[in-house]
Amino acid sequence: MDSDSPIRVGVLGCASIAHKNVRAIGLADGISLVAVASRSAEKATHFLRECGLPEDSGVRAVGYDELVHDSEVDALYVPLPSGLHAQWVVKAAAAGKHILLEKPLCLHMKELDDMWAAVEKAGVAVLDGTMFMHHPRLEKLREEMDKLGGPLEVNASFSFQATELADGTGGEWMDSDVRGQKDMDGLGSLGDLGWYTTKLALWTFGFELPSGVMAQPGALHNAAGVMKRGGGTLMWSDGRLARMDYSFVNPFIQDATISCKTGTIRMSDFTLPRDELNCEFTVERSPTLSVPDNGPTVVSGEIATLYGLADKPQEARMMETFAQLCADPRGEEAGKWRRE
Amino acid sequence: MDSDSPIRVGVLGCASIAHKNVRAIGLADGISLVAVASRSAEKATHFLRECGLPEDSGVRAVGYDELVHDSEVDALYVPLPSGLHAQWVVKAAAAGKHILLEKPLCLHMKELDDMWAAVEKAGVAVLDGTMFMHHPRLEKLREEMDKLGGPLEVNASFSFQATELADGTGGEWMDSDVRGQKDMDGLGSLGDLGWYTTKLALWTFGFELPSGVMAQPGALHNAAGVMKRGGGTLMWSDGRLARMDYSFVNPFIQDATISCKTGTIRMSDFTLPRDELNCEFTVERSPTLSVPDNGPTVVSGEIATLYGLADKPQEARMMETFAQLCADPRGEEAGKWRRE
Repeated sequence: MDSDSPIRVGVLGCASIAHKNVRAIGLADGISLVAVASRSAEKATHFLRECGLPEDSGVRAVGYDELVHDSEVDALYVPLPSGLHAQWVVKAAAAGKHILLEKPLCLHMKELDDMWAAVEKAGVAVLDGTMFMHHPRLEKLREEMDKLGGPLEVNASFSFQATELADGTGGEWMDSDVRGQKDMDGLGSLGDLGWYTTKLALWTFGFELPSGVMAQPGALHNAAGVMKRGGGTLMWSDGRLARMDYSFVNPFIQDATISCKTGTIRMSDFTLPRDELNCEFTVERSPTLSVPDNGPTVVSGEIATLYGLADKPQEARMMETFAQLCADPRGEEAGKWRRE
Repeated sequence: MDSDSPIRVGVLGCASIAHKNVRAIGLADGISLVAVASRSAEKATHFLRECGLPEDSGVRAVGYDELVHDSEVDALYVPLPSGLHAQWVVKAAAAGKHILLEKPLCLHMKELDDMWAAVEKAGVAVLDGTMFMHHPRLEKLREEMDKLGGPLEVNASFSFQATELADGTGGEWMDSDVRGQKDMDGLGSLGDLGWYTTKLALWTFGFELPSGVMAQPGALHNAAGVMKRGGGTLMWSDGRLARMDYSFVNPFIQDATISCKTGTIRMSDFTLPRDELNCEFTVERSPTLSVPDNGPTVVSGEIATLYGLADKPQEARMMETFAQLCADPRGEEAGKWRRE
């Protein structure tokens, strides 16, 4: 391919999360959508119409195998259920395709090893689909954490309420959704939501691996044994710590608090910004409590609301980063996203 | 005593927390301060001056035993280190004094049993010094939780940074403060801060006792083995849950989130209000996430800031409640505060 041409990307699977990433491809520079694969041509065509891409848009509706071996396709975005990732990533890498892989990456370490080996052998680019990592809010957060002496603890909660079907039948969402099926997305709320809390915690501490990881008590599972609610604690040997919870039971919450040495950072939309171009967070500097001998208790500390402004939605910025990696899979930018 | 006369209260011990409660006694109706006891008359006199009560104020400076047997004293406020509570509460109850006891109540269950038996035998009033329980914000919170279908989960954090001495010597605060000494306040951050997170969690769930309690990983202790940082999870058999952390390491934080069936309540000052007469909290009703087929992700949910207005600081309201209990130690109001 010509280095000035956009990366030609195909979408492998028409999961609901794919809609917003098709929109993101449309908003991103340096990457263009050329094909979508589903189990049937009808399903793929229907998906494209939902995305506002009619049949004359030039985006082709194809089958999985056809897409993986399509010589007009440089890269694949893979939003398949996690249980199917390994087989398709291995095939796609062998076919020389770069890969943007939805989270969670897979269900077992063996699958991760297989995918990694295939990607390394083929020399293709690989990136996980953690969109919030691409919002410029993170750079602002890092600056503020540094000003506050660095992070000590992260508390992060991510939940959405999915126990009852929206169709009003009273059925359990998890019994029909792929995220409740052990062989498809068997990590349940840990894989779907805990992925983000974990990513935030690891990012906060510069991707230094923790010295200990423990599940918290109080987990709930569906009849198939898939986690509906759970919690986990990451510990570093010097006492730094992250507490996380992830739930399909509670109402929609995406709160994170980062305790730093001299202050506190709080977000109430750490994964999906309430305003996609203008993310808020608050910084409480030097919060103190003083109890005078003869007067009211004083809780002081300046709480400032800061903003991370983005030129494009985080999903579009992720697509642009992915296009950069495809253009130079072992270059400097790729090095920032690879952790071995 | 005359039922219209104010309850005459003495303060047993001049701990720093006693200052604000002496102020509270001054602001409360139906209760008046008549004496303060310390290990020396000089210390008690100094404490009174700090509280704005000069020697001609009529408040007497006495010794511990003298106060407990003072016939002009109806009730005692006891801010002694927890390790000393049992012996003095047993003595005070035997002397017929009503007791307002600072938290944590004691260090061992045996001490609790001894104190309870003494209080029951004497028929005196007893109340713990959890001031936030007396702020009218709680009534507003209860109304809002009910509107949101009732509580599912509590996440509560309480911390203040106390690892280094303010005198700049670089010494550990916990090595000099009573809260770092095993036989005095040996429960450390659990007793000093976890007391409040636990009280909030139990209050949220109507004081129904949990079916399980587990410590969270990641606890830190000082050289004497007293907890500097810890966490705990309370579990109820139907899946309701409270996650709590309490720390002398992090900057001052007192955040609580209550997840209800159809929304979320958040506070950033659940123990000590930023404004003692006007407490804020937010209610997020029906938070939802929607991902349209071809448009930006929409995070919706009305976030309203509500207020709990108080006529007096919560500490003064606590003193007025205590005065009511003293006037009728086994009456209806007392029944609301007794859990056997």
